[in-house]
Amino acid sequence: MKNLRKYLDSIEPVDNKLDETIDAHLNSLTKPKGSLGLLEEIAKRYITITGVIPPKLNKKRIFVMAADHGVAEEGVSAFPPEVTFQMVKNFLSGGAAINVLARHTGCETAVVDMGVNFKFENEKGLIDKKINKGTKNIAKASAMTEEEMVIGVLAGIELAERSKEDGVGLIGTGEMGIANTTSATAIYCALLGINPEEITGAGTGLDGDGIKRKAVVIAKALELHKPYSSPLDILMKLGGYEIAGLTGLIFGAAKMNIPVVVDGFISTAAAAVAIQAAPQIKEKLFFAHLSNEKGHAVVCEKLGVKPLLNFEMRLGEGTGAALAIGVIEASVKIFNEMATFKDAAVAES
Amino acid sequence: MKNLRKYLDSIEPVDNKLDETIDAHLNSLTKPKGSLGLLEEIAKRYITITGVIPPKLNKKRIFVMAADHGVAEEGVSAFPPEVTFQMVKNFLSGGAAINVLARHTGCETAVVDMGVNFKFENEKGLIDKKINKGTKNIAKASAMTEEEMVIGVLAGIELAERSKEDGVGLIGTGEMGIANTTSATAIYCALLGINPEEITGAGTGLDGDGIKRKAVVIAKALELHKPYSSPLDILMKLGGYEIAGLTGLIFGAAKMNIPVVVDGFISTAAAAVAIQAAPQIKEKLFFAHLSNEKGHAVVCEKLGVKPLLNFEMRLGEGTGAALAIGVIEASVKIFNEMATFKDAAVAES
Repeated sequence: MKNLRKYLDSIEPVDNKLDETIDAHLNSLTKPKGSLGLLEEIAKRYITITGVIPPKLNKKRIFVMAADHGVAEEGVSAFPPEVTFQMVKNFLSGGAAINVLARHTGCETAVVDMGVNFKFENEKGLIDKKINKGTKNIAKASAMTEEEMVIGVLAGIELAERSKEDGVGLIGTGEMGIANTTSATAIYCALLGINPEEITGAGTGLDGDGIKRKAVVIAKALELHKPYSSPLDILMKLGGYEIAGLTGLIFGAAKMNIPVVVDGFISTAAAAVAIQAAPQIKEKLFFAHLSNEKGHAVVCEKLGVKPLLNFEMRLGEGTGAALAIGVIEASVKIFNEMATFKDAAVAES
Repeated sequence: MKNLRKYLDSIEPVDNKLDETIDAHLNSLTKPKGSLGLLEEIAKRYITITGVIPPKLNKKRIFVMAADHGVAEEGVSAFPPEVTFQMVKNFLSGGAAINVLARHTGCETAVVDMGVNFKFENEKGLIDKKINKGTKNIAKASAMTEEEMVIGVLAGIELAERSKEDGVGLIGTGEMGIANTTSATAIYCALLGINPEEITGAGTGLDGDGIKRKAVVIAKALELHKPYSSPLDILMKLGGYEIAGLTGLIFGAAKMNIPVVVDGFISTAAAAVAIQAAPQIKEKLFFAHLSNEKGHAVVCEKLGVKPLLNFEMRLGEGTGAALAIGVIEASVKIFNEMATFKDAAVAES
């Protein structure tokens, strides 16, 4: 934990020294000033985070981190727990939504077992970071031990470091884990001081009564584990392993100035833990889309972040990140590939 | 005009006979029901328009139609009129924003001279449909003659027909023409009964006083040409040639059941004319993005259409369409490429 705190303190905030150079180039391109709106802002943000001008964006990699949740035994999900490992197999064979969308926007998909309750037999392409066979039921016990939490975070940091070595210029977050909206909601409530009833939603498809029961389970867990000493304490107590992995991934990417595209409801919980643990990280993140999962809008507002897209999606896996990465890459290309007024012999206003 | 009316009456409305088949397939895919939100709706809409299941989306083509506007002499634009032909050259050499974004989402770019005030010398790739060297100043005269309007619309229909022959599965609209926000705004006011002051905006970058003067010019034109006998009468009187071409493009695409992605403020004016002339066309269109040009939000609301994206862009050229095409193609791929619960052996809820 001490070493982790030291690592977080060593993460540099973004440096705005390139602002004028970036603006001057954007304003020299053949378009009315500022007329590409967010695309210009995104390009600027990308360059500011990486510190490299002109920007280079070759490889994009989405991490889909999977884990099981003990709290699933409380009946908080519309799907049975075995869907976690079944979907991991689906990711590996390329048939899930994230595979389709990642292929579409040219992203690699890295599937990580952070703690799935299933013994995979040398599945090709699966990255094995299994901490345990699922967290404990947060309504009855701490999701994980402190050691497990640190192992999970360090695994994420390591995967970010490996991405840097591989020349990845943009990291997307994604996840899979039956009952993980329960874990994410509990984390938000503890972290941001929100009442469970306000943000507990349908997840994969609970009905009204199911949502009420889910909110009661979350309230019970929140009560059981208080007080909370830090964002990482909240992560440890309320889980899950995939959220710990994603938190570490964000720490590592921020340390190495790789911009991260945060997916939806679950991924934003990892981002929220990361931002509260080390606020300078916030400017290094893009938020992909506003999830249709109840509560995401409230949470984004509390965090002061503005998602790029709103397609009323609520699937997770990194599907929103995959789409947003297409837009971020478009923005970088605008910066790199457009002609200037001078080059194209176009009159200025 | 009579033949054109007959053509419009022959455009079939969308047929919802595939609804159940589409829904059944979408619900068989490995995701919670409806969890991909608009992506599912977009896929459904695409299939409903084309009538082909599974959907095939190979070629995507964006038409960038260019023309000059006599009303530019009233000082309604921040840029000089020669920028129209200069930007056409920029489109042809691949350095404009639309080129970058169309390449990014794999679209062909078809640049059409509908009425640019410049004699192009065999520019490679330019489609010559020049009607005249720019419209007349709408504050003083009808933008075009009835014959010119019909020629413009027929040119658009022909380009849609050629796209069908070429196997194009999705058409995007784009445009270039200094002073064309003035023309488009006037069209909206006449078509939808809006006061010019309510929707006249900065275009390429007018200041507050400039916008006021522009609104006065539009009000003067509206007064001069009233009464208006039909949407095509409005198109003829208030221009421009590129808007006439785009209106025809939409007519032709609707006739042949090719979905059209309508770009921003100018393109929506062509769509508005088309919808008012033949309301069954509306369901065959996608609206790409909410433009940052003042008035687009009001206009979209009046037309009852919901743009897919909002990146605060106000460039035109088809830049919003190019980005939206990426999302529509993603939606079609979701329908075609995802595994079903059965195939992937994933348990259902």
